[in-house]
Amino acid sequence: MAFSERVTRLKSSLIREILAAAQRPEVMSFAGGLPAECMLPKVEWADMPLTLGQYGMSEGEPELREALAAEARALGVPCEASQVLVVSGSQQTLDLAAKLYIDKGTEVLLEAPTYLAALQIFQLFGADCLTVPLQAEGPDLIALRQRLEQHKPAFAYLIPTFQNPSAVRYSEASRDAVAALLDEFGVTLIEDEPYRELTFDGGNAKPIVARLNKASWIYTGTVSKTLLPGLRVGYLIASPDLFPHLLRLKQSADLHTNRIGQWQALQWIGTEHYREHLAELREFYRQRRNAFEAALQEHFADLADWNSPQGGLFFWLTLKQKLDTRTLLDAALSQDVTFMPGEPFFADPDVNHGYLRLNFSHIDPARLDEGLKRLAAVIRKAVTRQAA
Amino acid sequence: MAFSERVTRLKSSLIREILAAAQRPEVMSFAGGLPAECMLPKVEWADMPLTLGQYGMSEGEPELREALAAEARALGVPCEASQVLVVSGSQQTLDLAAKLYIDKGTEVLLEAPTYLAALQIFQLFGADCLTVPLQAEGPDLIALRQRLEQHKPAFAYLIPTFQNPSAVRYSEASRDAVAALLDEFGVTLIEDEPYRELTFDGGNAKPIVARLNKASWIYTGTVSKTLLPGLRVGYLIASPDLFPHLLRLKQSADLHTNRIGQWQALQWIGTEHYREHLAELREFYRQRRNAFEAALQEHFADLADWNSPQGGLFFWLTLKQKLDTRTLLDAALSQDVTFMPGEPFFADPDVNHGYLRLNFSHIDPARLDEGLKRLAAVIRKAVTRQAA
Repeated sequence: MAFSERVTRLKSSLIREILAAAQRPEVMSFAGGLPAECMLPKVEWADMPLTLGQYGMSEGEPELREALAAEARALGVPCEASQVLVVSGSQQTLDLAAKLYIDKGTEVLLEAPTYLAALQIFQLFGADCLTVPLQAEGPDLIALRQRLEQHKPAFAYLIPTFQNPSAVRYSEASRDAVAALLDEFGVTLIEDEPYRELTFDGGNAKPIVARLNKASWIYTGTVSKTLLPGLRVGYLIASPDLFPHLLRLKQSADLHTNRIGQWQALQWIGTEHYREHLAELREFYRQRRNAFEAALQEHFADLADWNSPQGGLFFWLTLKQKLDTRTLLDAALSQDVTFMPGEPFFADPDVNHGYLRLNFSHIDPARLDEGLKRLAAVIRKAVTRQAA
Repeated sequence: MAFSERVTRLKSSLIREILAAAQRPEVMSFAGGLPAECMLPKVEWADMPLTLGQYGMSEGEPELREALAAEARALGVPCEASQVLVVSGSQQTLDLAAKLYIDKGTEVLLEAPTYLAALQIFQLFGADCLTVPLQAEGPDLIALRQRLEQHKPAFAYLIPTFQNPSAVRYSEASRDAVAALLDEFGVTLIEDEPYRELTFDGGNAKPIVARLNKASWIYTGTVSKTLLPGLRVGYLIASPDLFPHLLRLKQSADLHTNRIGQWQALQWIGTEHYREHLAELREFYRQRRNAFEAALQEHFADLADWNSPQGGLFFWLTLKQKLDTRTLLDAALSQDVTFMPGEPFFADPDVNHGYLRLNFSHIDPARLDEGLKRLAAVIRKAVTRQAA
């Protein structure tokens, strides 16, 4: 069996395995990043034209591209519809970016921690992952400058707004500083923003790509967190120098994004009923965040520290006693509770023990307290054993 | 700008450019592979459960996988639902296979001619393409044995049933011989079958993967040619040794295939109303094939030779006077007619002049005669000029 060299770096996905385990109805899962089922909006299909069954354009549906460009301009991103590429969920943007930039040994710059599925695909293509520690207001700027002085990464991949997993949102000052550094060193920015709309304090900072003067950029978003993930409709907006390459890579990947989902997305993007839905969603998740934090205070105050997330879907816990959180999974599952260990969110997992990502959007509120109580007990037991 | 080495092999897609030109309503296009609009079935969405809006499994919807496995078993392919991976159109199977097998310089074995989008993605990943000439009943078996004796390709990519572009269907004897050779040399088979259901003479030969005893295999199909391409729902079925790798690659590419299209596909696969629709579709295309062939006889008898396709969507013409058919495109477009040059379907286009692929399924019958007449005139003029 002669597979590609790449396949030697194809890891079993911890996420997939945890999510599979979480399918058992008795399991209380803090592991995934799933929207709450009850907040999936009711969608109508009756008016969809039959002609959408035909093959479509690789770029995406023209009207949807116009609508997405208008939304991005409203955020301050200078762009035209011709720069918008509709993709099969924003995961595909990572695949296209990996193909565009990464050979074996190509250096790329990531936050630590970062989104683990991005890490996986960049590593699959053979990237050497440079990292910059994430702090409460954004990346460590001294470390960022050092990396840029000492290396020439093909791109910086950043998730500045309610990052998965850490929930960090870059401050205004941090956004400006990062943009200035990327311009100074001429490094392309990939800015991933799946969680921007899920803001609990109304904050709406301008994207970093909108603060760049020279560097090339890809801005990426999705309807998966606010409308329906099952549609698999995401998008990227790229600086004009990058767009033609990304378009050809999209075409070779799957010809075009499904038109049914694109049509449904178009019924929402930029409309008043979408704004109303988003307002409800923010309020709903804000309440879930509050309830979750109250339960955390009760069960985890002695075990971990955290910042209260101002948006997104996750709490990021730092254990007071470091331990490899992957070793807790079996014990947690035996208690019908699961979570995401922090290690896989780091390029160097074995020196980054002691973090947990807990999703607060999807758990049934009636089981929240019991779930966190059980998880705390599992951790407490492991801490005690480690101390012994 | 530092792109990957791969991007130097990213060609502008001739297909995309021709299809873009063909968007002008006055253009009579024989270029694409589009189903006839009037044969797109009316689909109902009213009963789709809202829960399908949630994230799904990377493998695909369980019921759809069961239905696809049952269909494949009925063709003689020994498989279980656990071997079925639903993909975002069968183009994605090519992307996943390229990732699984191809490093720079990896040898792969293809038909000549072959599907150009397969050629493009295999070459994008750096494959060295070995080829075997296609004859009326299948590949040149002496050449195939020679290639296998002299090389060790990572896989053979074959389209044995109404190939795009040549419309060739392998005979029973050819299928057996190919399977025996791949078993003998232990070469993995990727068998691509988008056109199997579009048979005009009722032929239904067992797939080659069903005739293998030892070699690994990937069998790939789609609903794009028989239901709705805009759904972007295809599938692969793989031997159990390959499946786990393909599944992880699928997850890293786009998490999972859109569930809306999967649900719609499930409403059809294996049902009586799908069988009725397929019967109508075959009769409709058979009549279009007949009308097309009559018009070809009238306008092209002195210019080209062809075999009458027994299925699929294309005529493959061999010009009596060889010339680079790519050079005809501008002249054809100036006459508001377009077609697919044959050269891009060959790994070595510059030594394979003189073929044209003509789609017969999509053209308005009222414009068929005028379109072929204009195209013949363009070719006749070029032949005359070449002779001068």
